[in-house]
Amino acid sequence: MISFRVEATCDNARLGLLTTLHGEVRTPAFMPVGTQAVVKGVSSEEVGQTGARMQIMNTYHLWLRPGPELIAELGGLHAFARWPHAIVTDSGGFQAFSLAKNMRASEQGFEFASHLDGRKMMLSPEEAMRVQGLLGSDIAMQLDVCPPGGSPRAELVKAVERTTRWAERCLAARAPKQGVFGIVQGGTDVELRLSHVDELARLPFDGLALGGFSVGEPIPDMYRALSVVGPALPSGRPRYLMGVGMPADILIAVGHGIDLFDCVIPTRNARNGQLFTWGGKIVIKNARYRADPRPLEEGCECAACRGGYSRAYLRHLYLQGEILVLRLLSEHNLHFYGRLMAAARDSVARGDFSPWAHAKLALWADSPG
Amino acid sequence: MISFRVEATCDNARLGLLTTLHGEVRTPAFMPVGTQAVVKGVSSEEVGQTGARMQIMNTYHLWLRPGPELIAELGGLHAFARWPHAIVTDSGGFQAFSLAKNMRASEQGFEFASHLDGRKMMLSPEEAMRVQGLLGSDIAMQLDVCPPGGSPRAELVKAVERTTRWAERCLAARAPKQGVFGIVQGGTDVELRLSHVDELARLPFDGLALGGFSVGEPIPDMYRALSVVGPALPSGRPRYLMGVGMPADILIAVGHGIDLFDCVIPTRNARNGQLFTWGGKIVIKNARYRADPRPLEEGCECAACRGGYSRAYLRHLYLQGEILVLRLLSEHNLHFYGRLMAAARDSVARGDFSPWAHAKLALWADSPG
Repeated sequence: MISFRVEATCDNARLGLLTTLHGEVRTPAFMPVGTQAVVKGVSSEEVGQTGARMQIMNTYHLWLRPGPELIAELGGLHAFARWPHAIVTDSGGFQAFSLAKNMRASEQGFEFASHLDGRKMMLSPEEAMRVQGLLGSDIAMQLDVCPPGGSPRAELVKAVERTTRWAERCLAARAPKQGVFGIVQGGTDVELRLSHVDELARLPFDGLALGGFSVGEPIPDMYRALSVVGPALPSGRPRYLMGVGMPADILIAVGHGIDLFDCVIPTRNARNGQLFTWGGKIVIKNARYRADPRPLEEGCECAACRGGYSRAYLRHLYLQGEILVLRLLSEHNLHFYGRLMAAARDSVARGDFSPWAHAKLALWADSPG
Repeated sequence: MISFRVEATCDNARLGLLTTLHGEVRTPAFMPVGTQAVVKGVSSEEVGQTGARMQIMNTYHLWLRPGPELIAELGGLHAFARWPHAIVTDSGGFQAFSLAKNMRASEQGFEFASHLDGRKMMLSPEEAMRVQGLLGSDIAMQLDVCPPGGSPRAELVKAVERTTRWAERCLAARAPKQGVFGIVQGGTDVELRLSHVDELARLPFDGLALGGFSVGEPIPDMYRALSVVGPALPSGRPRYLMGVGMPADILIAVGHGIDLFDCVIPTRNARNGQLFTWGGKIVIKNARYRADPRPLEEGCECAACRGGYSRAYLRHLYLQGEILVLRLLSEHNLHFYGRLMAAARDSVARGDFSPWAHAKLALWADSPG
């Protein structure tokens, strides 16, 4: 159902091709986040126009509403959300931790009350796979245990061990025609991470993800761990860094051999008025854009830039609370992430990834905002 | 700057062609409302795709934010909002009445405090024309006095008389290359309306509007007045019914000879989950649409219908508060209004407007919602 081929490397950075039942995904790739079977503010057609060929959708949210049975009845997530390309679903474990009420974790799974209506729910590895099977994603994520940043080592060890046992239960419960990725835990403890990589690499996962990053730990600690753990992930399978991140984080992680990314930053920051461009950030409400007739970025193919919407007009819409601007800015940022990934792939193919990426990082470090 | 030609009639209904410096508008036409230089939730390109060739934008709002001087500096409303077609601006009088604080009306104009920051403002006929000149709309509306529905006759008479005096002041202050429409007042008092039509028809306005309808009076009273006043408006100039209305209201008014309409209903009702179709209304949150795989309406060219978004999916997005759905539903309703006006024009051209419209009205009266 899932095949993956590394087509070129440049130091640790890789150029790859992931093939799914819903088309090919060129890696390194960024997956927009369609939590409730929609990328906030952006239609599926527009998400596709950013170059994205895989979305991540959320098992926890869709399990609660509208329910996986309804989505299955309507033909699965691809038909429901009118997204013809690949879909990853996460397992819901992270949300059970962060959103659910009265959560009790046991070897069996996560027992909790729905944050919407208080209904009692039990998210076990088997239930996570059953729900993802009904949703019909191309790639299901195993249920894992993700301790918050700064957790003591004993807790990280327990999380790693339970995640491994749940990995085996998830693989045993996998749906036909669905790829499954394992999730490496271990916080910023490199030794623990490496031993967990070894354990999960022995299981027949279609790819491995790094969970438990960007969960509150200092960013330099994440970079340090990534520099060792990224290249240690099995080279023949896709490597996915979950929930990361800013454009700079992504370039650094690509340099450490990561292939797949997802993050709410492009859409959430857009809704907060923060835009990404090659020249650095734009905070659209700033007075400096009051009479600025330029588009957000020359050459960008998003609806706002292509349509010639000036920064002054976008600022006006933003300050007046017009909902159109939330979409236009979200679309712009997703286009930027799409262009970022395409440029990273080109750079790996050319063999100059490291100098190219470092020039960008240096430029953005000085960005005036 | 403005020319108008009646191309066919069918009883009192008219087929017309309004020519502006920003293109032609086939009438009867519906103007989407772009209060703050944007139709809520919908991009200008998408508004154009609904068939709309004229928008109405709001002098009061744009005067306060971002200010007409800024818009003029950026090339006027057409350039600012990236809307290449025609634009009407209203005068701001209605909003000074309904939104402003501490409003004091005098022969000079409306003195009030901005509802945004309390700033003291003075909206005189001359200021309304100055602001609209800076905005650069194709058609400016005169400043008028619009009493609420149910006002006593003495108040209606005073409003009519002041509106006539302001009509002359507005015409004297008109900007070059801008059409100006007068506004007939008089509530549901047919005699008063007819005498005001006579007075304003003598002035060199490019068209006449009916203000003071849909301001709280019983709808049958509006219909009764329209049936007399509509046909009495000068036949060689465009006739505009301000702020009306539901699809049924529009068909009835077309039957009484009205050419132009504007209303927030298609977009506001969409944001409240109410959709229009030829078969009647759809209230998208209703449980009956829970697993409905059909689009809102077969054959509709809006993004949701064309993209195959099911009612079930739209209901899911609506119930989850996803902002995408506000746009999709707004676009659908504007497409419906566009199709409604196109069908009305076709029917006038064919000569069967009255039976066609009455069949629609009978169908909608029985609409299950």
